[in-house]
Amino acid sequence: MNLDQLTTPALVLDRRLLAANSRRMAAHLGRFGVPLRPHVKTVKSAAALEAAFGGLPKAITVSTLAEAEYFFAAGIADILYAVGIAPAKLDAVARLMAAGADMKIILDSAEAAQMTAERGRALGVRFPALIEIDCDGHRAGLKPGDPAIVAVGRLLAGDAGTALAGVLTHAGASYDCRSDAALVAMAEQERAAVATAAAALRGAGLACPIVSMGSTPTALFARNLDGVTEVRAGVYLLQDLVMAGIGVCRPEDIALSVLTTVIGHNRDKGWIVTDGGWMALSRDRGTAAQPVDQGYGLVADRAGRILPGLRVEAANQEHGILAARAGATLDPDRFPIGTRLRILPNHACATGAQHRHYHVVDRGEAVVAVWERMGGW
Amino acid sequence: MNLDQLTTPALVLDRRLLAANSRRMAAHLGRFGVPLRPHVKTVKSAAALEAAFGGLPKAITVSTLAEAEYFFAAGIADILYAVGIAPAKLDAVARLMAAGADMKIILDSAEAAQMTAERGRALGVRFPALIEIDCDGHRAGLKPGDPAIVAVGRLLAGDAGTALAGVLTHAGASYDCRSDAALVAMAEQERAAVATAAAALRGAGLACPIVSMGSTPTALFARNLDGVTEVRAGVYLLQDLVMAGIGVCRPEDIALSVLTTVIGHNRDKGWIVTDGGWMALSRDRGTAAQPVDQGYGLVADRAGRILPGLRVEAANQEHGILAARAGATLDPDRFPIGTRLRILPNHACATGAQHRHYHVVDRGEAVVAVWERMGGW
Repeated sequence: MNLDQLTTPALVLDRRLLAANSRRMAAHLGRFGVPLRPHVKTVKSAAALEAAFGGLPKAITVSTLAEAEYFFAAGIADILYAVGIAPAKLDAVARLMAAGADMKIILDSAEAAQMTAERGRALGVRFPALIEIDCDGHRAGLKPGDPAIVAVGRLLAGDAGTALAGVLTHAGASYDCRSDAALVAMAEQERAAVATAAAALRGAGLACPIVSMGSTPTALFARNLDGVTEVRAGVYLLQDLVMAGIGVCRPEDIALSVLTTVIGHNRDKGWIVTDGGWMALSRDRGTAAQPVDQGYGLVADRAGRILPGLRVEAANQEHGILAARAGATLDPDRFPIGTRLRILPNHACATGAQHRHYHVVDRGEAVVAVWERMGGW
Repeated sequence: MNLDQLTTPALVLDRRLLAANSRRMAAHLGRFGVPLRPHVKTVKSAAALEAAFGGLPKAITVSTLAEAEYFFAAGIADILYAVGIAPAKLDAVARLMAAGADMKIILDSAEAAQMTAERGRALGVRFPALIEIDCDGHRAGLKPGDPAIVAVGRLLAGDAGTALAGVLTHAGASYDCRSDAALVAMAEQERAAVATAAAALRGAGLACPIVSMGSTPTALFARNLDGVTEVRAGVYLLQDLVMAGIGVCRPEDIALSVLTTVIGHNRDKGWIVTDGGWMALSRDRGTAAQPVDQGYGLVADRAGRILPGLRVEAANQEHGILAARAGATLDPDRFPIGTRLRILPNHACATGAQHRHYHVVDRGEAVVAVWERMGGW
């Protein structure tokens, strides 16, 4: 089977690029001696994880309990669920723990800590919880200097229904950085935030075994990881145009693409119409706010070679509209009906989630494997 | 089971609103005596279709061959695949025809007609094809006055591998209308475009049995359907904020929502954080270009009552950030951790596609059924 025989649209994963992206992060973090806890919300596939790491990693980060259940069943026990816990989900966490999973949850308030402790006591479980720290005002968490950190820490450490497992932060704002210097500074801001929070807990006589930070940009641009016990990152395994737009990778490093077929042309408007719409590409327009707007994606030929003058200009549910960028020209006759093209995605997490399988290639056009992707909650 | 017991995020479908939306369209088109060929790309569920129509409809429109296969297996034979055919998909169309499906495909060029005819002859099949007409410069199709319509019609009618089944258009530009008068005018523009194309074919001595138009806005705002043999529409069954924004429905008519749970607060910023991020809501920001930007969705309580001062301001993969609109205030204490809220979507097709099941309610909070949704290609 090769890419010419697949039903389009179809998700394509280049296994060599996946492995190269994995090695790059390992080499970078290896310099600091800080272990990686990969975030599996991007790949959502045990086979992809195995190929990336040459075997399943021991410790992972998940964004849903469905991911926790799936990867635990695949053989990974050390699981950090890195979305603030909803109390109704604690029973599912307890079931995973009873089955042998080394689960860790996160929360950022006394209210959540109390609810968790109460449920833990009721179930006869101690839920290991990390306190979420807000390093960049981007989403959730307690500010590094907030006295509530110690208060929540005491609550977690002192209750029979909880255990204080550490602190965690995520520099989501790193996606808005526009220079290497800004990325290096954001990585340091993220590190300092969790290190400060950990110091506050230890200063109050509390143990803080895990000090966890991470995002793909800050993981790759960190110059100092003092006081950090683990780094989390996920999208780096596949990379995408948003990452390329902030200088974290090159478009040529992107391991994920969507195979599409040309179904028509609008010669008056200079459009090539394909069967790859937003259902296959996702509605993610993450490059819209970047210096180079990649539309709904960059266009490559079937072999994966980027056609730099083109982009996916617009997308309907099952139609992609390809057009030349400003200054470039497009000869529609180069792309007759039936031509297969690969679209590099703005956001690997979003595009991957539109599909249930990876069609795996090794640089070439032969499909060497088909890997399932999981989804849902 | 009720909404309080579901794992969040979860897709909720109000069966009474679904049926009411269905009746409204049937009543409107009934005045013209023109049959509806519902587009199933929005609901993607045989159970939902059955509930909407009080039994499966005889004829449908699909956006993928996976939908054609699924709904044919469910018992619907008359199927129009309304995306320009990719030649490599003709074998799957032929397999459906051999199994008894009354398939119709669409195309908009002599190039596609010739490729289809060639494959039809090779397979010993006559592929019934409609010529796609471009009524609004929005996507694909031949312009109503283009002499290529008759040329393609002759090609389809005269080849042993194809049959000329009619003409079809879709006024995608109706989504950009900003007044009832503009919608009425767009519906007439759409009607006139297919009627003109059908007249050209008949004037050339060709049969044109199907004259098909449709989009939810133009179907509901059509004042004249002369010369049209069927109307297509899909999103009207669920409705969404984009439709409400152009005056096609009220927010209260929206049958689809995403149930989420409050997981935290950022009191400095006035944010409520939920577990309903873009993975559950989709990345669709269709209201961004409308007069009222609904963010990633309107917020309703667990019973479905809209909380007008709130919207989903931002979304990460598994986090939704709710904030007050300009001029409104938000008391976070009204929404403690664990509170369940329902988010009304910008775009029902996109939000629905993020989920594999509908949790069905009848106005209330009791889950009366769980229906599967299909997906993929």
